[in-house]
Amino acid sequence: MDERLKKQLDFALEIDKEKNITRQTHLSGHGRNENDAEHAWHMAIMAYLLREYANENIDIGRVMLMCLIHDVVEIDAGDTYAYDEKGLSTQKEREDAAKERIYSLLPEDQKKELIALFDEFEAYETPESKFAHTMDNLQPLMLNHSNGGNDWKEHQVKESQVYARQEKSRLGSEKLFQVIDDIIQENIKKGTIKARE
Amino acid sequence: MDERLKKQLDFALEIDKEKNITRQTHLSGHGRNENDAEHAWHMAIMAYLLREYANENIDIGRVMLMCLIHDVVEIDAGDTYAYDEKGLSTQKEREDAAKERIYSLLPEDQKKELIALFDEFEAYETPESKFAHTMDNLQPLMLNHSNGGNDWKEHQVKESQVYARQEKSRLGSEKLFQVIDDIIQENIKKGTIKARE
Repeated sequence: MDERLKKQLDFALEIDKEKNITRQTHLSGHGRNENDAEHAWHMAIMAYLLREYANENIDIGRVMLMCLIHDVVEIDAGDTYAYDEKGLSTQKEREDAAKERIYSLLPEDQKKELIALFDEFEAYETPESKFAHTMDNLQPLMLNHSNGGNDWKEHQVKESQVYARQEKSRLGSEKLFQVIDDIIQENIKKGTIKARE
Repeated sequence: MDERLKKQLDFALEIDKEKNITRQTHLSGHGRNENDAEHAWHMAIMAYLLREYANENIDIGRVMLMCLIHDVVEIDAGDTYAYDEKGLSTQKEREDAAKERIYSLLPEDQKKELIALFDEFEAYETPESKFAHTMDNLQPLMLNHSNGGNDWKEHQVKESQVYARQEKSRLGSEKLFQVIDDIIQENIKKGTIKARE
């Protein structure tokens, strides 16, 4: 087998490990914890089906690929819960090291391409990145809400924390942010999200 | 919320159940059984990275979407193991009923679009369908091989059965079929796949 194909297959096998990276979110029906690969799959399909609600014109193929690969770094760096302040402070350093190791398994051109796509996602600047982030926020919120908001309750998440993350969802889609906002407000009323004092 | 968006979100929540549909394949590192959502995620990324090996010109965005949704019907119909002859005889009937129920959750235009894409995958005729099938065959073979061929051994799978499925992989990619063929031959030599008598 030639070197290029061998590298591509080595990378393909390596990312299998993403299926073992668990998240704080639980599957619908009060299921087990979700893992990163499942989350990415779900986001990519949602991006395709909901693309008409993006604020700006987007290249949906790029958005889907961004969704699919955005958590590959967590194979080394682990999942950082959205409301874990200590974890968040070291997240970038851990993910940069992971990015270099994992994407270096690929041929140079594909390494560069996927790192650029991941960096674009992280930078939160392009229309594609903003819409992918809206999916990254909406997907776990939808699951958590379907389970009565138990994940927020368990972590005693505050209104200010939820909005600090979710307000940015409006950068990708004003329309979908309205859905998100309704869900947050409902959960504040129910007490599963701790209201501002 | 308007009716269209509500339908799209109902579908998005429904397909979460695909994460509970387990397959016979085990994750690398002698891990647990894989599920359909993880398998689809893995196939879509592999399709993107290996697209240069497709026999014909393909629209990679369509291939990726096909990979992502091709097992949604298994939420109702369950996974049918590639070498389960009894299951295979009723597979189409079960999957047709599932297709109708699940995709009917979507707005009519998206229902039609995704059913057409699924039917295209099943028909095994277009370049996109052929390449998606190559991924559907290569991805579990790669995982199984990484685990010493244990899945074949456990099910006492025969050379003729593996080739009946995997020979069609060459319709999508001659180059990747060579990789597949090498892996099969190695496993026949090791005895994990039962050689022809």
